[in-house]
Amino acid sequence: MIATLERRNFPVDELRALASSRSAGQTITFRGKPVTVQALGADSFAGVELALFSAGGNISKEYGPIAAKAGALVVDNSSAWRMDADTPLVIPEVNIAAAKDRKRGIIANPNCSTIQMLVALKPLHDAAGIKHIVVSTYQATSGKGHAAVTELLEQSRDVLAGKKADPKVFPIAIAFNAVSDWKAGEQDYSEEEWKMVNETRKILGDPTLAISPTTVRVPVVNAHSESVHVQFTRPMSPEEAKRLLAHAPGVQLHDAAYAPGKHPHALEASGTDAVHVGRIRADIGVPGALNLWIVGDNLRKGAALNAVQIAEAVLAT
Amino acid sequence: MIATLERRNFPVDELRALASSRSAGQTITFRGKPVTVQALGADSFAGVELALFSAGGNISKEYGPIAAKAGALVVDNSSAWRMDADTPLVIPEVNIAAAKDRKRGIIANPNCSTIQMLVALKPLHDAAGIKHIVVSTYQATSGKGHAAVTELLEQSRDVLAGKKADPKVFPIAIAFNAVSDWKAGEQDYSEEEWKMVNETRKILGDPTLAISPTTVRVPVVNAHSESVHVQFTRPMSPEEAKRLLAHAPGVQLHDAAYAPGKHPHALEASGTDAVHVGRIRADIGVPGALNLWIVGDNLRKGAALNAVQIAEAVLAT
Repeated sequence: MIATLERRNFPVDELRALASSRSAGQTITFRGKPVTVQALGADSFAGVELALFSAGGNISKEYGPIAAKAGALVVDNSSAWRMDADTPLVIPEVNIAAAKDRKRGIIANPNCSTIQMLVALKPLHDAAGIKHIVVSTYQATSGKGHAAVTELLEQSRDVLAGKKADPKVFPIAIAFNAVSDWKAGEQDYSEEEWKMVNETRKILGDPTLAISPTTVRVPVVNAHSESVHVQFTRPMSPEEAKRLLAHAPGVQLHDAAYAPGKHPHALEASGTDAVHVGRIRADIGVPGALNLWIVGDNLRKGAALNAVQIAEAVLAT
Repeated sequence: MIATLERRNFPVDELRALASSRSAGQTITFRGKPVTVQALGADSFAGVELALFSAGGNISKEYGPIAAKAGALVVDNSSAWRMDADTPLVIPEVNIAAAKDRKRGIIANPNCSTIQMLVALKPLHDAAGIKHIVVSTYQATSGKGHAAVTELLEQSRDVLAGKKADPKVFPIAIAFNAVSDWKAGEQDYSEEEWKMVNETRKILGDPTLAISPTTVRVPVVNAHSESVHVQFTRPMSPEEAKRLLAHAPGVQLHDAAYAPGKHPHALEASGTDAVHVGRIRADIGVPGALNLWIVGDNLRKGAALNAVQIAEAVLAT
């Protein structure tokens, strides 16, 4: 988040770094200068114009309203406020208008998998009305935090050395495997799958949109990939989709013909701001439907970048 | 293939190991006894009752008919004869009756991704008529051969040591990535994707069945996983699907409620004969549709095991 503020030359007068009392006193660097971490408290937000929250749902639930009451625009990276009826859930390229109606002074940042999917699909939705999305994800370990990345790398090392993987952060081995490690939600779906359903419906403003999600973690460090099948209310050709996405905000279109390895992929997308869309194909079985391959950096557009872009867009108005 | 013959106590009088002249003279072990590899030639099949081919499409194209003419039942693991109208394409649990009509004396073994999907879906198809399949795969490197597995492991080692991946077998880095590395087919699909479409249509006997495939390679050594969305001609509940799959041939049903890591996965399925089916969920958006997670050992049921099972079934009749 802090790197994103730096990289985008966000107009910061004073950066206040707030964390638990455990981290208080540590020093971070912002624009080459040291910033001492302060313990988060009820009086932390005096004079703050923008509060970026990325410390888990419970902290956001408690301190988001406190920061908003102190006058800050709150942009919350957790899932705490996403489905709250009085909190807009915003992807700037998709529904920035919703940001105006922030009754609580809080704007929620969507789930990483949802953000990259909707940056890619919104221009198609506007043109032809999406009827049904089937999405299967190939999600990176960085989405589960730093410890998860470390575990992937350590497990990989262990397995390569002939040792057994020793899962701690993940429920089962993630090295050289493909697993669903998210908490259980209703009806045998994972919470991550429900986030993709509910957040997509809220952001697109269609509470009954048909979405069939399967979220899967793969042994990738950073950047999520998604295999997406989309049906529309009228036929859409790959050519039309490519035209719509060629200059769509936040999208980098990969429109080369398919050849082995010729498509966006996680290693290449990691460390970039764009949502990469490739492998746009006319569906073989359903006339007018499309299949796409969508890759994005879940820590950038899927998290910090989107949050900072929300702040940029709101503060500019 | 040879390990499978051993493991299943296949009634072998004499095992003839045929390979290129380069490998001739090498020794392999079958049932504890040495077998000298012979150079494949036009007269290799005299007296042979069963010829199992697994040496690439060109060898199968040339020598399959020669072996059949010499009186052998040919079971071919390559893609050479799969779509030939006079060659049955057989998964014993799914369409063993088709094996009877082998005009060329050749029976083709389907693609690994197709086999595991159809072992799982056939009982559902029989009950409710499949209308549309959307499948996204998470395929292991062993499907591309031994050199591909070695490359995954070496690349992983390199990356963990801070070196750059150096792709040779794969078109781009496979370690810590998710890629489509198959040859290009028509309409921007990969050949692997067309195999899933055409072979499924042939095996189920429905030449227009709607299938929307996306095939993806992940950094897994062995065992393919598949995220499958299925629509039927009449609604099917997860409960009915579980009843149908509980005792289905070749299927191991995982019907525990979803919890993190509680589902079949590649590491666990590798080295097993069954097709593992789990995460059977009622679709959120399309009433009566299902989502499933299907995992199978692509070298066993996806290749050698299925070929040997075809031979067992045909020779038993």
